[in-house]
Amino acid sequence: MKAMGCTLKGVVRYDGTGFAGWQIQPDARTVQGELEAALSRIASQPIRVQGAARTDAGVHALGQVFSFVWPGLFPERLRHALSKMLGPEMRVTELTEVPESFNARFSARGKRYAYSIDFNREPDPLSARHAWHVPYRTDLEVLSGLLPQLLGKHDFAGFQSTGNQSTTTIRTLYEVSLHRGGAVGPVDAENLWRLEFHGNAFLYHMVRNLVGSLVEVARGRFPRDFLLESLRVPGPFKGHCAPAHGLALLKVYYDD
Amino acid sequence: MKAMGCTLKGVVRYDGTGFAGWQIQPDARTVQGELEAALSRIASQPIRVQGAARTDAGVHALGQVFSFVWPGLFPERLRHALSKMLGPEMRVTELTEVPESFNARFSARGKRYAYSIDFNREPDPLSARHAWHVPYRTDLEVLSGLLPQLLGKHDFAGFQSTGNQSTTTIRTLYEVSLHRGGAVGPVDAENLWRLEFHGNAFLYHMVRNLVGSLVEVARGRFPRDFLLESLRVPGPFKGHCAPAHGLALLKVYYDD
Repeated sequence: MKAMGCTLKGVVRYDGTGFAGWQIQPDARTVQGELEAALSRIASQPIRVQGAARTDAGVHALGQVFSFVWPGLFPERLRHALSKMLGPEMRVTELTEVPESFNARFSARGKRYAYSIDFNREPDPLSARHAWHVPYRTDLEVLSGLLPQLLGKHDFAGFQSTGNQSTTTIRTLYEVSLHRGGAVGPVDAENLWRLEFHGNAFLYHMVRNLVGSLVEVARGRFPRDFLLESLRVPGPFKGHCAPAHGLALLKVYYDD
Repeated sequence: MKAMGCTLKGVVRYDGTGFAGWQIQPDARTVQGELEAALSRIASQPIRVQGAARTDAGVHALGQVFSFVWPGLFPERLRHALSKMLGPEMRVTELTEVPESFNARFSARGKRYAYSIDFNREPDPLSARHAWHVPYRTDLEVLSGLLPQLLGKHDFAGFQSTGNQSTTTIRTLYEVSLHRGGAVGPVDAENLWRLEFHGNAFLYHMVRNLVGSLVEVARGRFPRDFLLESLRVPGPFKGHCAPAHGLALLKVYYDD
């Protein structure tokens, strides 16, 4: 007889500063590791969780999603019990029962990321943990004008870092937009902007490599057609990978 | 012959988390201490700075003001040299020459503070350093309705903590308002609010004591007339002093 259990979907929010990323690793503090340790302790048996995105060390999440099988009926107070065990840097904001077929990673239909950039000449101390400081003169009109080139279905192989595990490098971007203010930042943010990317899926370092490339072009170090050419004839990524701490996973999309 | 010198006004922004407050102290890292050390090193002689507000340990500033006498003509690159020496948690955003009579503290005509509160049941990890977590059911309509009681000229002696050094406890509040979103926080902030206070001057812990009292009334622990009564018959403060890390000095006002 199959043991009774249920599949749960959680939404987790974290400040990535103090974590060695999402994925569990020996001798490192990771979000997955903390979640699994807390859940396993509550369940008194090992629980493995599947994350929608394996965010790198230093990357933040406003709405990361994870799933796991719980041995037994869904306990109403599980989210509350989890909260008591997790530190202040992470918080499970939602926990719901979902069909057995649900998998946070493989059921995902899309993701939205924000990449925050501090264009002040000197870094803003109130954005230091959440925005990439770019002190160079950068033409935001040029940057903004480049964004439509990325929209739609492309082979993004030219914007992945080595270490990608996907079989295909074709991805679709539904939206790429520039907004005032960081994903996390002060209310009087000056020269703080964020790029938002909504796509069906993302290659390894794809957002950070796209952001790095956009900035290189907008500050005049790369030719204007760098993005178009990299999409047309994908080669190894030759640009600058923007640092992890500017990146935040905003939302993961699923079929309702 | 009097040595040549000039008076300078600086605006400084800091994340207060890692500082033992503004005021210089032996064996503690303070904002004033860091500024004086850097300026003294650049000048090769001791420089003392005067701050507009002596923010407590953990309090942040988006626009603290300080002044000092510089021995010699105003060096254009002083702000830049300072930036190189100060850590990432503080930043001098403006530095200008002002009349000799200017004193950051005594010339101030008003100050604006923001106090950020996270009303989520469990604390938001992306606001943890910059907002007070109030998990109790708090009636924001009641809170908002109380604010006009504080406006205008009152004896705020009932809202000062012991240790106040002012001769008078009469202060004038020009504005007290409630806004969505923290002074520093995530773009998708939910249940995160800030109270802004603009007044001519503030007593020791006055903003934090007012905020603590407002929350006590709005969650039903203090009677509705607590603020009015404390203003009418000031006694020793009997409420809750809201924690330092929710407070941020937004701006200091001067005559132009």
